[in-house]
Amino acid sequence: VDVLLDLRFPIGGRDELEHALRQAIMSGALPAGTEVPSTRTLAAELGVARGTVGAALDQLAVEGLVEIRHGARTRVRHVPRRAPAVALEPAATAGATTDTNAAARAVADFTGGDPDLTQFPASWWASAVRRALASAPVATLGYGDPRGQPVLREALARYLRRTRGVVAEPERIVVTAGFSGALAIVARALAGSGSSSVAVEDPSLWVHRSILGRSGLAVTPIPVDADGVMTSALAASAVDAVVVTPAHQTPTGVTLAPDRRAALASWAADRRVLVIEDDYDGELRYDRRPVPALQALDTSRILYAGTASKSLAPGLRIGWAVVPDEWLDAVVNVIDTLGGSPVSAIEQLALADLVDSGRYDRHVRSMRAAYRRRRDDLVAALDGVASGVRVEGVAAGLNALVRLPVDCDETAVVDRLGDDGVLVTPLRRFRVMSSPDDTPGIVVNYGAPYAHRIRDDIATLASALRHALAGSRRR
Amino acid sequence: VDVLLDLRFPIGGRDELEHALRQAIMSGALPAGTEVPSTRTLAAELGVARGTVGAALDQLAVEGLVEIRHGARTRVRHVPRRAPAVALEPAATAGATTDTNAAARAVADFTGGDPDLTQFPASWWASAVRRALASAPVATLGYGDPRGQPVLREALARYLRRTRGVVAEPERIVVTAGFSGALAIVARALAGSGSSSVAVEDPSLWVHRSILGRSGLAVTPIPVDADGVMTSALAASAVDAVVVTPAHQTPTGVTLAPDRRAALASWAADRRVLVIEDDYDGELRYDRRPVPALQALDTSRILYAGTASKSLAPGLRIGWAVVPDEWLDAVVNVIDTLGGSPVSAIEQLALADLVDSGRYDRHVRSMRAAYRRRRDDLVAALDGVASGVRVEGVAAGLNALVRLPVDCDETAVVDRLGDDGVLVTPLRRFRVMSSPDDTPGIVVNYGAPYAHRIRDDIATLASALRHALAGSRRR
Repeated sequence: VDVLLDLRFPIGGRDELEHALRQAIMSGALPAGTEVPSTRTLAAELGVARGTVGAALDQLAVEGLVEIRHGARTRVRHVPRRAPAVALEPAATAGATTDTNAAARAVADFTGGDPDLTQFPASWWASAVRRALASAPVATLGYGDPRGQPVLREALARYLRRTRGVVAEPERIVVTAGFSGALAIVARALAGSGSSSVAVEDPSLWVHRSILGRSGLAVTPIPVDADGVMTSALAASAVDAVVVTPAHQTPTGVTLAPDRRAALASWAADRRVLVIEDDYDGELRYDRRPVPALQALDTSRILYAGTASKSLAPGLRIGWAVVPDEWLDAVVNVIDTLGGSPVSAIEQLALADLVDSGRYDRHVRSMRAAYRRRRDDLVAALDGVASGVRVEGVAAGLNALVRLPVDCDETAVVDRLGDDGVLVTPLRRFRVMSSPDDTPGIVVNYGAPYAHRIRDDIATLASALRHALAGSRRR
Repeated sequence: VDVLLDLRFPIGGRDELEHALRQAIMSGALPAGTEVPSTRTLAAELGVARGTVGAALDQLAVEGLVEIRHGARTRVRHVPRRAPAVALEPAATAGATTDTNAAARAVADFTGGDPDLTQFPASWWASAVRRALASAPVATLGYGDPRGQPVLREALARYLRRTRGVVAEPERIVVTAGFSGALAIVARALAGSGSSSVAVEDPSLWVHRSILGRSGLAVTPIPVDADGVMTSALAASAVDAVVVTPAHQTPTGVTLAPDRRAALASWAADRRVLVIEDDYDGELRYDRRPVPALQALDTSRILYAGTASKSLAPGLRIGWAVVPDEWLDAVVNVIDTLGGSPVSAIEQLALADLVDSGRYDRHVRSMRAAYRRRRDDLVAALDGVASGVRVEGVAAGLNALVRLPVDCDETAVVDRLGDDGVLVTPLRRFRVMSSPDDTPGIVVNYGAPYAHRIRDDIATLASALRHALAGSRRR
């Protein structure tokens, strides 16, 4: 309790407590692993109701900042960020979601959200920048439309319609700083319009839950099963919006079943709820034709968002959102409040050039083939590593969910893999609600290792996993 | 009142009223020119206290959304933004602060904040992009540090120390989406830390006041005289922060006097107030050595912010802030909440290349010489146009404040100039508080016209101004 009291929270109610705890965790004042005292103790010491403490901690758990586990003390989770005082080392600071010390000694790193950065079409990109500068009207270098450059929005409208079945007029397209930038803007538009709560899939990316929670929205987890997010649970909630990954759920990799797609759309229409469709890797489907975007089912309720982070590189910071008419003014107002479009006009023109010339398609096709080979290699390598090991969610995208034998301890396996220099993400890091019945699992981003070492890395993973499982039994 | 009541405000108090009015104005539901009913009428119809209505309208006036004039009805101001439904025309939508219809038929456009976009060093930039892609570690294309690329922060630290006297360690530098992006982030950090009010110079840019107000801060105007912002008035206020343009005040062009610089710094230290130094054009000083940045006076209280928008192009969307230690965590947390650094890694590396290679310095020197010639031409052309016309604020930057004869009507002059196809900005658009005693003036961005037509444009302005003044007398 001391560390909490030392923070001298200006405790008024749940919001203030939540805010103070959030700041303390994000700033490192409450480091990862810190045990949070019981709600009873905290309530007594801080002079607030136990229910208030419980509600605040529940919200922080949803945002991924604390971990509430059955039969164990609530703890502060590891929040990946670099301490400002750390010396600058480009290579070490580049992996945003990786523990930098561990990454430095890693033999094979399957964490984070990067695609294979060595495959970025650098030469095409540099040429597209040069062409854009040579041919674009000079006025495009001025203060621009908050939605982004018209020429890119027109190119994206055609591309998204053709490849993802999205109904996208350029007027409703907003170019953003990646998917996260789009989510942050939409979260603010929601909060500014009086919405108070948003549903997310469970499991899902904590960083997205964190963006929503810190934008002032209460976050409600909705379970995911083999058919995707459970629309029945969604219908029983009273949320104002929901964020979903229908084409390829993060991190389970399941596809939203057809009846659930219909149920989701009709629920959204009935309740006038905003559906945020995160189509981060919709282009990277391996075994059959891509699952079309949900958005076409109801363009007035479903906001489609995509990104160049997986198809090109996260460092570009380019994403896009197709915004329902009803939300367009609110979204543009938020962008204005944040200082206008954050995306470089030159890079927007370069991306438009790649899309319109067909080079973007060619690059995506080539990456799809390369990632499919990786996927096949991974499945083959992990086949027979141990009974109870199953590779799931690999019909698309860059991530595999590797289910572990039910009697093994997920954390211990991840630690043992780490000792062998193999970095993976424990499934529980994606979970909001956890229980002793959870199947253990690890999430393997097989897209990230560089092409020249992926085969070795996969072999290393298989061997380390065999070794880790041999010695790991559930506590 | 009808149009207001029709909006069905969920009126609770001042904040709700302010928010609802702001949304109505930004979305165009209350178009420019709409008369706002008297506070008495509004209070009665909306069922709130007159003081509440008055306070809300005062705040909106500071943000530049309504104009309160002595002896006249309060009116909704023109808020420049493009309607989403408008057809896409790159050329017409590029000028963000310009009435697009007027701009289309303009003979000479001196509005907006653009520098001469034809002088963007496109070939250098394209080469720098290619070099960056060829030489940077591939990991820099991944999800990066929320503060931006280390290599650019190191380059900026050296550059700002050398050219602006800024004490800037790379660890405290944050790369932002232009100055507006930096201001929006700092405004959120302030609001999130319990700050409630921020002071701004009067006159100043309405778009900055709008960003502050819409971030949840009350905005307090502080008058500017010939020595810059009046620090005595600042000391009498109870604000948590202040935004200043000490090197070259926007739009008057005055430089903050040495005793005021000292007074500002010691006030900030005594009151523990954050000073946000907007050094948007500090590099473009013509007649003597640049005025060093204020920041070195107190690095723990003064946040320095600069931009590539004037030296290169606004479309790059690159700016930077040197953040006091005490504010660094809060600023980084806001960036995380907005989805991470919004600035392209590739363009950050390209800018670092230009800065480190000395090409950025050469470009700035060459632009400084070119803008100084424009400045001299403008002063010469307006000399003798009419008695009472004085060109002020031209020791630096891209803007001139042209004072008009005291007996003329500023609005009428601007309208007459517009009829002749000459676009300038009336001084009152920058003002928060206005009175019948205000000296009329126009703000002329002589940086914006393209190089091949600037001489003609200046001649056109001089001739149109002579004509306008001949027929324009104060109402």
